[in-house]
Amino acid sequence: MGNQTNRQILFVKRPKGLPDDRTFRLTESTVPEPKDGEVRVRTIYLSVDPYMRGRMNDMKSYIPPFRLNEVLTGGVVGQVEVSRHPDFQPGELVTGMMGWQDYSVVHGAELNKVDARLAPPSTALSVLGMPGLTAYFGLLDIGRPREGETVVVSGAAGAVGTVVGQIAKLKGCRVVGIAGSEEKIRYLQKELGFDAVINYKAEDVKEALKDACPDGVDVYFDNVGGEISDRVLSRINQYARIVLCGQISLYNLEKPDIGPRIQTTLLINSALMKGFIVSDYQDRFKEGLSHLAEWVSQGKIRYRENIVEGLENAPQAFLGLFRGENLGKQLVKVSEVQ
Amino acid sequence: MGNQTNRQILFVKRPKGLPDDRTFRLTESTVPEPKDGEVRVRTIYLSVDPYMRGRMNDMKSYIPPFRLNEVLTGGVVGQVEVSRHPDFQPGELVTGMMGWQDYSVVHGAELNKVDARLAPPSTALSVLGMPGLTAYFGLLDIGRPREGETVVVSGAAGAVGTVVGQIAKLKGCRVVGIAGSEEKIRYLQKELGFDAVINYKAEDVKEALKDACPDGVDVYFDNVGGEISDRVLSRINQYARIVLCGQISLYNLEKPDIGPRIQTTLLINSALMKGFIVSDYQDRFKEGLSHLAEWVSQGKIRYRENIVEGLENAPQAFLGLFRGENLGKQLVKVSEVQ
Repeated sequence: MGNQTNRQILFVKRPKGLPDDRTFRLTESTVPEPKDGEVRVRTIYLSVDPYMRGRMNDMKSYIPPFRLNEVLTGGVVGQVEVSRHPDFQPGELVTGMMGWQDYSVVHGAELNKVDARLAPPSTALSVLGMPGLTAYFGLLDIGRPREGETVVVSGAAGAVGTVVGQIAKLKGCRVVGIAGSEEKIRYLQKELGFDAVINYKAEDVKEALKDACPDGVDVYFDNVGGEISDRVLSRINQYARIVLCGQISLYNLEKPDIGPRIQTTLLINSALMKGFIVSDYQDRFKEGLSHLAEWVSQGKIRYRENIVEGLENAPQAFLGLFRGENLGKQLVKVSEVQ
Repeated sequence: MGNQTNRQILFVKRPKGLPDDRTFRLTESTVPEPKDGEVRVRTIYLSVDPYMRGRMNDMKSYIPPFRLNEVLTGGVVGQVEVSRHPDFQPGELVTGMMGWQDYSVVHGAELNKVDARLAPPSTALSVLGMPGLTAYFGLLDIGRPREGETVVVSGAAGAVGTVVGQIAKLKGCRVVGIAGSEEKIRYLQKELGFDAVINYKAEDVKEALKDACPDGVDVYFDNVGGEISDRVLSRINQYARIVLCGQISLYNLEKPDIGPRIQTTLLINSALMKGFIVSDYQDRFKEGLSHLAEWVSQGKIRYRENIVEGLENAPQAFLGLFRGENLGKQLVKVSEVQ
């Protein structure tokens, strides 16, 4: 084999507040050999996701924290190089949780095949992967939007938010997005057909919500938390459903997140608020993917990917999430499909 | 008829903070005559309930605010004196929303009959009335406790809390109550069989919860809100259900209720929080009442009523709710069954 070194990005320092260059270290090791049942995968795309910030803290959450001085892990699309598992052949495209490195060795049971006839392989990390499924199950199973209702989504221009808004439109809802740049606002309104979009960096969110949601808010799909969410929650209707998907505005907070307690608002509106993680729906992924793939192939759901080149740039791509740099799914391209 | 005056308690001043004597005024008027379809009811028991504090504010909620200088209204059990509705006969016991007064005239459609063979008529305002149904639907439909799970209930010694804890015991749960006096603690533990009870006025709630809930909290039935709830919520398990029934610690707050935002806790635990009001389940009241009546008749659910005598003492009985004076359901007895 041609490559003799395996570049890796290690997690070397637990950040307080915003992560920075000291959080990561690029190192090199030898390319690992698969044992029986294992597969060696060459990384093509890495997914960088806001939830990974939570794993950098040493605290209990839905997934264990990253361990210091180990390779960071996340969603990967790659190509099988060497297979010692009967289900996989060299050259096949696969996806799974793997390391931020050029080559990973994982057990075949941890991999899923990527069908590149359906859509470009990168979509296995975006609209036809975890973010798409997160939007699908969070909106449809928790949010349960009905025709004519108003659905508000924060982080609207991100990998999840863009899909949430489009599914809500397919369900006949009024869709209001909240995002942080004029480029994002334009994209959501002009290309994805959102009914209204609020630029939280440029507008008075409270006033803008009044205009954008004249009939109140029936479903709030929350990717950001904090004060923006306080504003939205002050306008919910009776029997509103609040989908807690992310709280990106809080992930780098160093102090406890203090604000108005939401209980009274939920109580007087008989409203529901529920957190979830996409793996809660693992046994329904097939259903979700088949709907998403159908909508994508029919042009009913459109998607964008923001692709940064080079493994060494993965830390900056990750940090960019917290600066709101990505429109659509943020990916890192590590090698080419061969 | 003997009585020529109708004593009434008017709502005369919107309170800021805790209501007091200036909130109410006792007045007299003439006894009203029913028109076609209406019934005159002599008040036997008045229900005083924490939710009524919310109606004293001039703000949107699940029920409209009380109007100034009108008679207060709440749950009543009474006896039909004069009926111009075909379904009701003089002497029959009925319940419905009526005034804080000796006599009310209401349309027959707003009344339900009380079956005194089942249990004492006062129970139509307690375990076999709104508080019992609130406990039943909140716990079973939102909390959905499963055998072996830990259920925590705050305001545990109140009309709703006592029923919640006993139903949870019937479902095979570990039941932990939070209440505010040694008498309440003893009652819940010795007479109702709660597994553990915390006196929030005498104990460090955080530490006490650690001992009382070694396996975390699966269901939290919240009647109080505020800091006690913050403590419970910091101990929830994955897939926990939080039932928002009341927030009595906050009803008299004059400032916004500020505290740790709960969203991140719900998110990382895939937990659900839902507010409700008993009327959300109106079309299932019959089901709820039949189960509650069966449990009461079998001695599986026990209840207490705290009965104050005299219409003129209704305001003080109401204020006592916020001082935690009642063990079980707080009622006011206005006249005798004849």
